[in-house]
Amino acid sequence: MLGGGSVVIDHFAFDVEPWCLRERELDFDVLAQTESVFALANGHIGWRGNLDEGDPHGLSGSYLSGVFERRPLPYAEVGYGYPESDEVVVNVTDGKVVRLLVDDQPLDVRYGRLTRHERRLDFRTGLLHRELEWTSPSGRTVRVTTTRLVSLTQRAIAAIHYEVEAIDGPVNIVIQSELVANEPPPPASGDPRVAAALDAPWNGLLSEHGETSAVLVHRTQRSLLSVAAAMDHVVSGGHTPYVTAESSVDLGRVTVATALEPGERITLVKYVAYGWSSARTPEALRDQVDAALVSARVVGWEGLVEEQREYLDDYWDRADVEIEGDDEIQQAVRFALFHVLQAGARNEGRAIAAKGLTGNGYDGHAFWDSETFVLPVYCYTNPDAAADALTWRHSTLDLARLRAGILSLGGAAFAWRTISGPECSSYWPAGTAAFHVSADVADAVVRYVHATGDEEFERGVGLELLVETARMWRTLGHEDARGDFRIDGVTGPDEYSALADNNVYTNLMAQRNLRAAIAAAERYPVRASEIGVSSSEREQWRRAAAAMFIPFDEDRGIHPQSEGYTDHEVWDFGATTPEQYPLLLNFHYVDLYRKQVVKQADLVLALYLRGDAFTAEQKRDNFKYYEALTVRDSSLSACTQAVVAAEVGYLDLAYDYVWEAALMDLDDLEHNTRDGLHVASLAGTWISLVAGLGGLRESGETISVAPRLPHGVKRLTFRLLFRGRRLLVEATPRATRLTLRSGEAIEVVCYGTSYALEPGATVAVRTPRRDHRVGVEPSQPSGRRPRRRAGE
Amino acid sequence: MLGGGSVVIDHFAFDVEPWCLRERELDFDVLAQTESVFALANGHIGWRGNLDEGDPHGLSGSYLSGVFERRPLPYAEVGYGYPESDEVVVNVTDGKVVRLLVDDQPLDVRYGRLTRHERRLDFRTGLLHRELEWTSPSGRTVRVTTTRLVSLTQRAIAAIHYEVEAIDGPVNIVIQSELVANEPPPPASGDPRVAAALDAPWNGLLSEHGETSAVLVHRTQRSLLSVAAAMDHVVSGGHTPYVTAESSVDLGRVTVATALEPGERITLVKYVAYGWSSARTPEALRDQVDAALVSARVVGWEGLVEEQREYLDDYWDRADVEIEGDDEIQQAVRFALFHVLQAGARNEGRAIAAKGLTGNGYDGHAFWDSETFVLPVYCYTNPDAAADALTWRHSTLDLARLRAGILSLGGAAFAWRTISGPECSSYWPAGTAAFHVSADVADAVVRYVHATGDEEFERGVGLELLVETARMWRTLGHEDARGDFRIDGVTGPDEYSALADNNVYTNLMAQRNLRAAIAAAERYPVRASEIGVSSSEREQWRRAAAAMFIPFDEDRGIHPQSEGYTDHEVWDFGATTPEQYPLLLNFHYVDLYRKQVVKQADLVLALYLRGDAFTAEQKRDNFKYYEALTVRDSSLSACTQAVVAAEVGYLDLAYDYVWEAALMDLDDLEHNTRDGLHVASLAGTWISLVAGLGGLRESGETISVAPRLPHGVKRLTFRLLFRGRRLLVEATPRATRLTLRSGEAIEVVCYGTSYALEPGATVAVRTPRRDHRVGVEPSQPSGRRPRRRAGE
Repeated sequence: MLGGGSVVIDHFAFDVEPWCLRERELDFDVLAQTESVFALANGHIGWRGNLDEGDPHGLSGSYLSGVFERRPLPYAEVGYGYPESDEVVVNVTDGKVVRLLVDDQPLDVRYGRLTRHERRLDFRTGLLHRELEWTSPSGRTVRVTTTRLVSLTQRAIAAIHYEVEAIDGPVNIVIQSELVANEPPPPASGDPRVAAALDAPWNGLLSEHGETSAVLVHRTQRSLLSVAAAMDHVVSGGHTPYVTAESSVDLGRVTVATALEPGERITLVKYVAYGWSSARTPEALRDQVDAALVSARVVGWEGLVEEQREYLDDYWDRADVEIEGDDEIQQAVRFALFHVLQAGARNEGRAIAAKGLTGNGYDGHAFWDSETFVLPVYCYTNPDAAADALTWRHSTLDLARLRAGILSLGGAAFAWRTISGPECSSYWPAGTAAFHVSADVADAVVRYVHATGDEEFERGVGLELLVETARMWRTLGHEDARGDFRIDGVTGPDEYSALADNNVYTNLMAQRNLRAAIAAAERYPVRASEIGVSSSEREQWRRAAAAMFIPFDEDRGIHPQSEGYTDHEVWDFGATTPEQYPLLLNFHYVDLYRKQVVKQADLVLALYLRGDAFTAEQKRDNFKYYEALTVRDSSLSACTQAVVAAEVGYLDLAYDYVWEAALMDLDDLEHNTRDGLHVASLAGTWISLVAGLGGLRESGETISVAPRLPHGVKRLTFRLLFRGRRLLVEATPRATRLTLRSGEAIEVVCYGTSYALEPGATVAVRTPRRDHRVGVEPSQPSGRRPRRRAGE
Repeated sequence: MLGGGSVVIDHFAFDVEPWCLRERELDFDVLAQTESVFALANGHIGWRGNLDEGDPHGLSGSYLSGVFERRPLPYAEVGYGYPESDEVVVNVTDGKVVRLLVDDQPLDVRYGRLTRHERRLDFRTGLLHRELEWTSPSGRTVRVTTTRLVSLTQRAIAAIHYEVEAIDGPVNIVIQSELVANEPPPPASGDPRVAAALDAPWNGLLSEHGETSAVLVHRTQRSLLSVAAAMDHVVSGGHTPYVTAESSVDLGRVTVATALEPGERITLVKYVAYGWSSARTPEALRDQVDAALVSARVVGWEGLVEEQREYLDDYWDRADVEIEGDDEIQQAVRFALFHVLQAGARNEGRAIAAKGLTGNGYDGHAFWDSETFVLPVYCYTNPDAAADALTWRHSTLDLARLRAGILSLGGAAFAWRTISGPECSSYWPAGTAAFHVSADVADAVVRYVHATGDEEFERGVGLELLVETARMWRTLGHEDARGDFRIDGVTGPDEYSALADNNVYTNLMAQRNLRAAIAAAERYPVRASEIGVSSSEREQWRRAAAAMFIPFDEDRGIHPQSEGYTDHEVWDFGATTPEQYPLLLNFHYVDLYRKQVVKQADLVLALYLRGDAFTAEQKRDNFKYYEALTVRDSSLSACTQAVVAAEVGYLDLAYDYVWEAALMDLDDLEHNTRDGLHVASLAGTWISLVAGLGGLRESGETISVAPRLPHGVKRLTFRLLFRGRRLLVEATPRATRLTLRSGEAIEVVCYGTSYALEPGATVAVRTPRRDHRVGVEPSQPSGRRPRRRAGE
């Protein structure tokens, strides 16, 4: 589907519009998925796009970043060092609920007649709009118009503007605005990717109400985290409405009753404030949320809306990506950037979960994809969020040191999956053994410091992260009889392999980690010495990095994913039916692990993140080899394949992968968007466009770009923050224009040549010819070609 | 401790006597261990050596081979093909209990005064004797003399001869003889090796009693197995004793009351019969055990004792091993042979559990060690038991085929651990991936057929086992670009490694499996064709066997345990303290797996079982290399190290390993004898002496021996059954005498030369000089030298 305008097309549930996501009809079959895509969050509070009246819902969700319950991990056969308990995200008190009674009939869209229902998420205003017209079973029609926001400027605040209008006759209206704790959890599922539901995890500590307000404070039973939720209301319209409030242990409720004549409206503005703590008293938390409510009421609804718009105007000014010639991708990348922002905007020192704050998938855990896929986007669009996320990792250093000790390692080994820091993976071959997570953290430190020049961060958080991870690598690997530094028995990014020797991705990223630690220790010798880095330790790192073993398969002229990998049997793709994907749900790990079949980019990710370690020919040959093995049963693959396909010259294939990355959640390609959005894949949309088609890379002390557009794309424009400067890159098939929109002069590399950019000035660079023929586009495993974009 | 006589020595809880195990004092601290070593079983029924009065006990145990309860297996993260439930051995109705009241004081050795307590297990009679003199808290003294047997001739029967004598005054005596179901399970333990206790698994179906008898029938709740237990009694002595019986759902009780004057006795003979079924009705089972009781009563106590003695006389005549110059090993090997017999004597078509019927360790599961360690002993001492055990494996073929299908394999993949056949291992890297179990089954088939010449078995059970396992190997491995047949991503015997490529043991055993399948299919072409073996399939097996990849480390001149193994870091043994063993309880698998540290013989086991695949130099060099890495955190290692040490010429070291194997349970070297005896290690005692010092091997169509005696051993004599003949091998340091005691003439190889043995004749062969110098004895990891034998 190319060409402009707002058109509903077949495979797409939403209208194609550049700045919003609009749903014109409510489809109960995909209710949970739409709750995910319409979720609002600010990195601290997350509200799924549940209907205001609560029922029906797919998965009711209200989350606070960092709030979890602990759960014992069961093992039939336990082993030394297995984590004893898990951290699981749980619903906090639900402040979204606004129920409506029309002449004693509860508004429930499953009953009566719904003549209109539209939801619209606006990326520029950050508001979720809903309009409905509903005729009750007894025949009275009302129009309900609601707008919801989770404030990006007032971190503790969410708000709802709720309006009811009588249409066809006089009606008695009762509005119940609620705080609901211990909502019953969703039914359990056999899919391990779905969060374990925990029944009623909350103990009530305090419940109070005022005239138009209520507050509840609860504490989890095992993790002992306290959460306060408060609400207050402003009512307008109606005929002298009757307002009353009440509270009990799991319920706060403000009830508004009035009568409306046709054409009359009543409006309720609901302010909700959240706070949580592991240490503060219930009373202190109550006061904290009450104070936040006052701040919100002082600003008022219009004020919150205005602040939100200003915040987002600035964001889009520095972060927007425009694509001319493909309206669906245009919408998708803004959808992606909006949700990536929401995942971390005000996430001050907590983990960024794989599903952000949009659902309880993966138990609310954060993984390496936060550092490897989400933080690169933040570095160039919202660097404070990157620093916050790395500061969270840093806050888990003591636990990571403890974990390293349990594993007989020095330094720090970061958790494979966690909320507050401890390892929560119960399947160690794909958890504990995936040590690359620590190199990914180091990689993110290096990237952040490169993108921002933030020396204070580097000297503090950054240096210690680099040093402690370097120490881990030094003890995890060893120098063998030939003098090679080997890292044996580890698991790389590809989850269809495990416990292999000398995974190329891992070894190259460990090498980068070791070198970065040396460089940082040399830049900050005093601080380095304070944390015990001696010249002999630096020398050990230098030796390990220099001797790092990178296996190469001379016969095939490519790098094996891990040592010996290319001697393994190739998966029988011809005998694998489409229904057998994802393979992990239909084949045993012992079958998958011993064969050549790749779940997600692993060696190919190394081609991107350690591009300096490969020749152009190696990149092309490796890409082709792994392309034929990669089934993309993970959302963390398409964007990387897009980047490398573009770099080696397969632009149309790259664009197919852009599409797959971009539509992962909008089209629910993995069938688990119901549990929340894939934040890393959303970030991957940006990566596939900016690093893929745009060719963004680090280059010495600056950055380089090298845009190449596939057929059908007329123009690609992206904005970047780099060391405090705002840059604009506008690419057409024939030329690229670089503009320094604000900040001091800087050099930027374009197609390999460095250009000096003066403030406000634009440099235009003609697109050079490719200096080599790329040959035939490589093939994917049978049935695993990326979706062609619409119209092809 | 060398030299004869009955001496109690320091490290040994029992007197050293050639034909029995005697304990002269009751030590509550090791009660559970002694219950294991004094266990009686016949392969069908197992009774731990619990005190007659039930309390105190370490672990009360009454087992029936093949009776288990099912239990769901918990997973925090489940994967495709993980077993959903486990089979766990559970106590059946306890028929051992005989309680005694002396003037209303219950006999409990923890109270009152125990002036004498002796237990004695007699290997020649198969009886467990107990004598005690006890003065009750109120001052009355009685002597209690009991004898217990589990009949080797009447499979369903156990019996107790219980006698009480008044010593120092008139006493009122009450004897309560019981059947007790649903005894409370032992407290749970964190050690994964301890069985999961299951609370009250039994539902009562039937309970009845007669004048001196009672019967109970129960069924498990999930596995739905029904067990009947019945008892009957003969009372003699006392003054017209009052006898009464009663029964309720979980209790059958016969009570005998009488008065005794000093010097008077009352005697109770208790017959107990057991039966179980998954199909028969409670009434049919009741009748079955009632009938068995009648048979036992007809024979009577003396008759049962006499049958037992005759059965054992014949056993020792064909199986005894004598060692002159080491009384402890003499006792230990008879203890071992007695318990190995008990584990399988009347085990007709059920699994032989790792702990036999002596405890609930390892959940009562059978592992590969049954085929690899226990069956070789049976082959030459009790071949019917070997055939029974393999027939059990054959009975699980459908489940093994199903399992292979789940793993995308052809043929059959046998369970790593199971009771009735399904895979019960929840930790797949050390379970499912240890495919060698299927080759071990095939190896046992080949050995059994070689030892017996049992063609009927070979044509039926044997052929199908060989063919289905060969099919599995053909599909598990693949031919790589170089033409090598590789088996990647599997786990060998060593449990401190996992998921490696081309484990030498596995590949060599698979090769033997493939070749044996071809040979058997060619010997029985009609039957082979019936089960689908075509000439092209045989050709595939031939190719796979011929191309089997056996990695070799040219630099080090040895075989790596698996491909790449010798490049791994060597475990830091110097930094490992004695308390850190066994390593698996103190180090994470990710640490163990990636380093060179061997839990149990793996490559060294290949040196023994596939000795034909190595040169003498390779054996010596490999043995030395792995000796320095092997920590023996498993009971399945010392015997193999004994065999190979002896073969390569380290006779004193071999004898140290004989000691370790022989004393595993008597000295509780692994600290888990409380959960039951290590049947495979007991069998290993025989292996270490007969295959180790005696040099027994298959040799073409016959067997070969090559005895070499270490210092201190003056004579080693062993008896063998081979193809229906009874052979006697008597070795001294200077010569070996071979005698064909019964059966037709046969050739036997001794020190490489074949000798024709005529019936009744003896051939004497002088011990040849070693044709090469063996050099310095290899060293073990720091602190992991085998225990020197006493006196050194």
